[in-house]
Amino acid sequence: VTERLSLNQITIRQWSLREAVTGCAAAGIGWIGLWRDKVAEVGVDEAARLVRDHGLRVSSLCRGGFFTGMGPDGPTGDGISDTLTAIDEAARLGAEALVLVVGGVVGHDLAGSRRRVAEALDRVVPAATDAGVRLGLEPLHPMQCADRSVLSTLRQALDLAAPYPSSVVGVVVDEFHVWWDPVVEESIAEARDRICGFHVSDQLVPLPHPLLGRALPGSGPIDHRHLRSCVDAAGYDGPIEVEVFNADLWERPGGEVLAEVVDSFRRYVTG
Amino acid sequence: VTERLSLNQITIRQWSLREAVTGCAAAGIGWIGLWRDKVAEVGVDEAARLVRDHGLRVSSLCRGGFFTGMGPDGPTGDGISDTLTAIDEAARLGAEALVLVVGGVVGHDLAGSRRRVAEALDRVVPAATDAGVRLGLEPLHPMQCADRSVLSTLRQALDLAAPYPSSVVGVVVDEFHVWWDPVVEESIAEARDRICGFHVSDQLVPLPHPLLGRALPGSGPIDHRHLRSCVDAAGYDGPIEVEVFNADLWERPGGEVLAEVVDSFRRYVTG
Repeated sequence: VTERLSLNQITIRQWSLREAVTGCAAAGIGWIGLWRDKVAEVGVDEAARLVRDHGLRVSSLCRGGFFTGMGPDGPTGDGISDTLTAIDEAARLGAEALVLVVGGVVGHDLAGSRRRVAEALDRVVPAATDAGVRLGLEPLHPMQCADRSVLSTLRQALDLAAPYPSSVVGVVVDEFHVWWDPVVEESIAEARDRICGFHVSDQLVPLPHPLLGRALPGSGPIDHRHLRSCVDAAGYDGPIEVEVFNADLWERPGGEVLAEVVDSFRRYVTG
Repeated sequence: VTERLSLNQITIRQWSLREAVTGCAAAGIGWIGLWRDKVAEVGVDEAARLVRDHGLRVSSLCRGGFFTGMGPDGPTGDGISDTLTAIDEAARLGAEALVLVVGGVVGHDLAGSRRRVAEALDRVVPAATDAGVRLGLEPLHPMQCADRSVLSTLRQALDLAAPYPSSVVGVVVDEFHVWWDPVVEESIAEARDRICGFHVSDQLVPLPHPLLGRALPGSGPIDHRHLRSCVDAAGYDGPIEVEVFNADLWERPGGEVLAEVVDSFRRYVTG
């Protein structure tokens, strides 16, 4: 039941990449979702070696993007050169996808910010094509529109991806971000082979924080089996990342958290 | 410039209904959006008299709904009898619309919760028709989907309203809730004479709280002139409510806040 399970590193942020790789291997988990800051701590080549030596594969690398010029810490530049670097890293790590978080609103110009994303995507697609790296456009929850992502729905991501081959530009379906969408089922069905990642987590109720209001599957209102069945029906049979931003989980021993990741995945996602 | 301005009472929650009515009249504001708890403090008939005697009109009454059975404080019942009471109150107050907040997700059943809203709406429409009260379906921000409103987008509200005459079931366009929507412009254009309210406010960045993360127009990423022009082009020429849930504003003298409401409305909404 856990062969599709991937541990997204952010879920156990207290672990170094080496600890995460070792922990996954010991738990029989075959996939890992890497974060660039964790990769940078050991270097890309050493990270690739560690993953390979433990028999793991990389479901995704987080992240490139911030094309609008606005991020949670303020202005960011256009994100192009950083994304090109990330494409190179994703290739060397053999990642199934490079997750793109596109950036927030510049000033009051939401439409212009969205146009800037399309223009920047067009500039990085050739490098991704050359490197054989699949870009994963990830719509983020509308509560993160202002400062992180003007890409807010799956349908919008599909429109953005449409000009490019699905082997180069895909979309990432993250439950926390899209579960509320009245057309999420239709959007997933339309996405078909664009889907290059499926991330599961739950939402805390009441929501304590826009970024950290997540929990392991089973703790909130999200119907994981339903969304997984939609993604399955669309033809996606790749890894499923458990990606949880939760400050309490970060305070606990990583091994304990990993056991709960596996348990919640079995009980609520594939069970 | 302020003839369309309406003060939604929640913006200056520290004021009683009598204080709010007096304050609006003194400031030359012709409209007020009432809340039922404030109305209940003086009684419906006295509230109606106070409003009338000060030459004000009621842009909306907040609120009926909670049809799913789930609210921010837990299970709520089906909301029907409370909404019928609210319809009666709205009629006696001469409100342009009764705002409906439909309720959150029951268990993990988002689709079932949404069906329940449609069924309950169908049960209260006859009473609204008889009373001559217009029901205003208000989509709330997706971050409030779990505990307050499974109605998350304008398009979804339009689908829900479609079986009924627009004179009985309308939609409320609240900037805070819909500004991020990639199809907000098209949805407003489609709404046409369904629009029975336009609420303005801004979003704080970073968002400190899902409910209280609002500010007066001009403090955040929302392009108020743009959205107002969309609503105007759709044919709506009614009152525009400034509706801000902001704990800091609630700590200050109401008169000071009202002056800022007028100023921000002039500068960012109609200016």
